[in-house]
Amino acid sequence: MSGTLYGIGLGPGDPELMTLKAHRLISGADVIAYPVLERGESFARFIAAGVIPEGSEEIAITIPMSVERAPAQAAYDAGASQIATALDAGKNVAVLCEGDPFFYGSFMYLFSRLSDRYECQVVPGVTSVTACAAAAHTPLTARNEVLTIIPGPLDAAEMLDRIKGAQAVAIMKVGRHLNKITQVLSDLGLLEHATYVERASLENQRVIPLADLTDPAPYFSMILVCKGSDPWL
Amino acid sequence: MSGTLYGIGLGPGDPELMTLKAHRLISGADVIAYPVLERGESFARFIAAGVIPEGSEEIAITIPMSVERAPAQAAYDAGASQIATALDAGKNVAVLCEGDPFFYGSFMYLFSRLSDRYECQVVPGVTSVTACAAAAHTPLTARNEVLTIIPGPLDAAEMLDRIKGAQAVAIMKVGRHLNKITQVLSDLGLLEHATYVERASLENQRVIPLADLTDPAPYFSMILVCKGSDPWL
Repeated sequence: MSGTLYGIGLGPGDPELMTLKAHRLISGADVIAYPVLERGESFARFIAAGVIPEGSEEIAITIPMSVERAPAQAAYDAGASQIATALDAGKNVAVLCEGDPFFYGSFMYLFSRLSDRYECQVVPGVTSVTACAAAAHTPLTARNEVLTIIPGPLDAAEMLDRIKGAQAVAIMKVGRHLNKITQVLSDLGLLEHATYVERASLENQRVIPLADLTDPAPYFSMILVCKGSDPWL
Repeated sequence: MSGTLYGIGLGPGDPELMTLKAHRLISGADVIAYPVLERGESFARFIAAGVIPEGSEEIAITIPMSVERAPAQAAYDAGASQIATALDAGKNVAVLCEGDPFFYGSFMYLFSRLSDRYECQVVPGVTSVTACAAAAHTPLTARNEVLTIIPGPLDAAEMLDRIKGAQAVAIMKVGRHLNKITQVLSDLGLLEHATYVERASLENQRVIPLADLTDPAPYFSMILVCKGSDPWL
């Protein structure tokens, strides 16, 4: 009998923000798989490090850094094939995912390659969006407010258009897109409502008004624009 | 010295989807507070029931069901005052929140009344949005896709407008708004892309194409519209 594939959300970074279910499944997994950036870092493995059983088999899927998408997809092909071999041998495989597996995660590329052939379970995790709101002491959305989540790499014109009509906004993966985003928010007169959050839930977490930010942003950073339309707050 | 106020996200319903941090803080809290609907149910307390220490002090904040907002706000006033008394006595108070405290949660009404006077920590939780995606085996958003989260009570014209320009959409709190939402999606030609998820992560969870739904929806239900624009998926 084949093993089960688990896509496991680990939350935003603080290992204590993983769920009890993630903890149980990782502790008991036969094989642990995770993506690794070309430079050799795996944020997902870092979050789960204290829970991975000693001596467990590990599958590190190295994702090449490239604007072209084909090389990364070839890496997922190879990773999926390694995982399939383990599943065929009756082993359960836990794929570690920072945040949530289906929220801007790479797990979906393994899921699309394996879920039609193997039993698969997806374990949701805390996303960086609510972790940033918690860190910033900023309620995201009350009652009938609409929340729009925007990836930082979006081009300026589309970003402006998306933010213009929105109520509460979270802009993810700020990194090298910081200047573009700041300009868009400034053009919309929203700079004073924007909060910048870096590495939410980690020890070196940082929260400041976007208007006060002077240094570059790392990849794991976010901008929240919450105008707080609820008169009762 | 005053105690600390904790706003604790418990996740979507399965007690195993609470975080390790939520588990630790609830286990060690002096006082447990939570909202209760007028009829006497507290979904938050249900999720945390197995973790609440025996004999701990409990503050149940009864929220009147009313279209008027003032009665609920009066209930939060009274609840905040009870919590303040406990904090003044040096007790730590854990406020139980289904999902995430700052994502359509009632905790923000306690936070706005207490956080300027007391040490406050917000613990993010898994939201129903990613829990529904996990249950439905439906990736929410890849790469540069925008995710729009829409509350079901929004009126039809605004809802149509919000969904029209959107990529991935999650419509929360469907309940008695089911027919309106189905009509909006049908008008936009999106019915075939819509998945209905009820009570995600609970034992009686249910996932079906929205087009096949014939019976009424409970409050804890969601509709996901994910067109999957990523050609690599």
